[in-house]
Amino acid sequence: MPRTSLPATTKLGFLGAGQLARMSALQAFRFGIQVSVFSDRPENEPVQFMTPFSYSGSFDSVDDMVAFAKECDVVTLENEFISSELLKEVQEKSGTPIYPSPDSFALIENKLIEKQTFENAGIPVTPYKLVASEGDLKSFGDEYGWPYMLKSSKGGYDGYGNHTARDLESAKEGFKKLGGEAGHDILAEAFVPFTKELAVQVARNETGSVVYPCCETVQENHICVAVLSPAPIEDKYQLRAQELAVKAVEAIDGKGIYAFEFFLTETGEVLLNESAPRPHNSGHYTIEGCVTSQFENHVRSVLGLPLGSTAMTKPAAAMINLLGTHNRPAAADHITEGFETDNGHLHVYGKLQSKVGRKMAHYTLLGNDLEKTHQKAKEVTSSIEI
Amino acid sequence: MPRTSLPATTKLGFLGAGQLARMSALQAFRFGIQVSVFSDRPENEPVQFMTPFSYSGSFDSVDDMVAFAKECDVVTLENEFISSELLKEVQEKSGTPIYPSPDSFALIENKLIEKQTFENAGIPVTPYKLVASEGDLKSFGDEYGWPYMLKSSKGGYDGYGNHTARDLESAKEGFKKLGGEAGHDILAEAFVPFTKELAVQVARNETGSVVYPCCETVQENHICVAVLSPAPIEDKYQLRAQELAVKAVEAIDGKGIYAFEFFLTETGEVLLNESAPRPHNSGHYTIEGCVTSQFENHVRSVLGLPLGSTAMTKPAAAMINLLGTHNRPAAADHITEGFETDNGHLHVYGKLQSKVGRKMAHYTLLGNDLEKTHQKAKEVTSSIEI
Repeated sequence: MPRTSLPATTKLGFLGAGQLARMSALQAFRFGIQVSVFSDRPENEPVQFMTPFSYSGSFDSVDDMVAFAKECDVVTLENEFISSELLKEVQEKSGTPIYPSPDSFALIENKLIEKQTFENAGIPVTPYKLVASEGDLKSFGDEYGWPYMLKSSKGGYDGYGNHTARDLESAKEGFKKLGGEAGHDILAEAFVPFTKELAVQVARNETGSVVYPCCETVQENHICVAVLSPAPIEDKYQLRAQELAVKAVEAIDGKGIYAFEFFLTETGEVLLNESAPRPHNSGHYTIEGCVTSQFENHVRSVLGLPLGSTAMTKPAAAMINLLGTHNRPAAADHITEGFETDNGHLHVYGKLQSKVGRKMAHYTLLGNDLEKTHQKAKEVTSSIEI
Repeated sequence: MPRTSLPATTKLGFLGAGQLARMSALQAFRFGIQVSVFSDRPENEPVQFMTPFSYSGSFDSVDDMVAFAKECDVVTLENEFISSELLKEVQEKSGTPIYPSPDSFALIENKLIEKQTFENAGIPVTPYKLVASEGDLKSFGDEYGWPYMLKSSKGGYDGYGNHTARDLESAKEGFKKLGGEAGHDILAEAFVPFTKELAVQVARNETGSVVYPCCETVQENHICVAVLSPAPIEDKYQLRAQELAVKAVEAIDGKGIYAFEFFLTETGEVLLNESAPRPHNSGHYTIEGCVTSQFENHVRSVLGLPLGSTAMTKPAAAMINLLGTHNRPAAADHITEGFETDNGHLHVYGKLQSKVGRKMAHYTLLGNDLEKTHQKAKEVTSSIEI
């Protein structure tokens, strides 16, 4: 049963205060409810300028998070920094529901379990193996080719990250660096010869699920610089990626918004690469590009409201990430052209400090032709310093 | 010269904390800046749930408002409760620019001066006369017919309001009630036999001006229940109303967003009826209905940014005002159908207390056919209690 009443005192809590929470909060405000935010940073974060209800604490402290959650009707997260075990404890002790649910999150927070969960659901994933010895490192390279990726199964959140294994020496080095010798689970993942990197957002709750168009994420040096929607690929791949994304969210019984990243391979396979249990950079274009944005459907979803249409409002959308160009107090400079361009929409995240490469803002341009829209968006944003 | 830089610490201040400030603030947040709010109410108001920067004080106290304005980079208002003289003093003493400017506001805060200003600019207004005696009251009725309206030139903000003069006795009674005997300027205004009530929003600053489509405001018992855009009238009347609205904003050298209400008469005249130096209920549909909403263009305007396209995103928009149906703590009930309807957008203002007839929320539906869209929007919202 969908929720039929929204009291004005309904309070939606965000664990994390960055731009994803900020853009979700903007949507919550449209529904007339209140927003509360929990931050673990010493400096003021984006959402803290948008609410009188701010809490400071540690993502490792159940007590801190319980005190926060008790003041909220529903809690959601904007990152993967808190373990599902802690989230479960916070949910139980506070009595406040958390979405994504700790049970869903438990199925994807560990990359090994995530791969297995999705494989068991019949979703093709990039080839991988748990590696525990020099022999494993060598045989993976021999089977799938060099180089390949080594990943800590616990993701990049604890200071570790990924490592490109170029040869056996490099693999051994990476294994050690990622904590393999200290007992961490380490995954080897094959490099997939792909033609496109794709992403699909899905929102789901008890009222149903809705899936967004499959978009292309354009990467430069492993950083997403642009998102194009719908992805310029054949319809059958569009549908395949959407189908797999819905399967994936069902496999983890997800409630909220989820993003799934895929590789479209040279041989026409669509392989699941990564998942995110939250609004995702690849879905920022949906704010203007779709009838209901990923943020609105996230808020609807966690509140138990019916989900909204994911249809595009124009045939094409191009989103450009505006990464920090300077280390300085934040300011968006040379923005005139962006504002002068019809159907262009600048979103600045309200971070006080700019750092080179930091996600500071984005710009979405809608149009009728994807390639032209992408070119124009690049031109318009090329002068922006931030 | 348009502004070319937006520092993250830019603070936009709102004198007034209701839904108009709230919807403007949501837009300011999209540009990454901060919002500060000044309220004269004892209870918490909508914007106060959206910022840590809240000030309480009196709209009659220059000191209170100066202290507030000093903390802001730009100040704007959401109502006509503060006299232009006080605004001027606040602007001078704080050094913070206020928009609409006190000089612009001085030309419309008094209904007599407003009429004269627009008449002098060649804009047809509804027939009116300053009345000071029983003879004036009688001769106005004899000339323009009974009933007619009596209005205090200082507007309705000090507890007075309008009075319908049905005959001479009723006119004398109204004259006294509105303060005519105590020396207030009283205007008599003829009832105009109109076929439609229209409204046009215009945003303007040093970078230029942009005008929105002419919409129809649908009134029941003198209350706006719906707005339909574009108004279902001949193109020539659309253009005429837009032309007059631009003339009007230029006549007062307006900076910010302005709304102008018109009568389309039985004889095909377009007469200016009222003006508002702020975002207006008639423009709420622009949030989804136009490429750039009235709120976004207001914020762009007062910040000195280039203005955005006012083109509609779909051929038709219908906005339904959701007025309080109960006296109770606020909650939006039976909202499911609204959320289930594609291209329907519910906006709830976050007021804590519902009162019968109070503006609590609105619902905008976009579509291809205006009449069908209006009917559907009425159906969808008919069950909502708020």
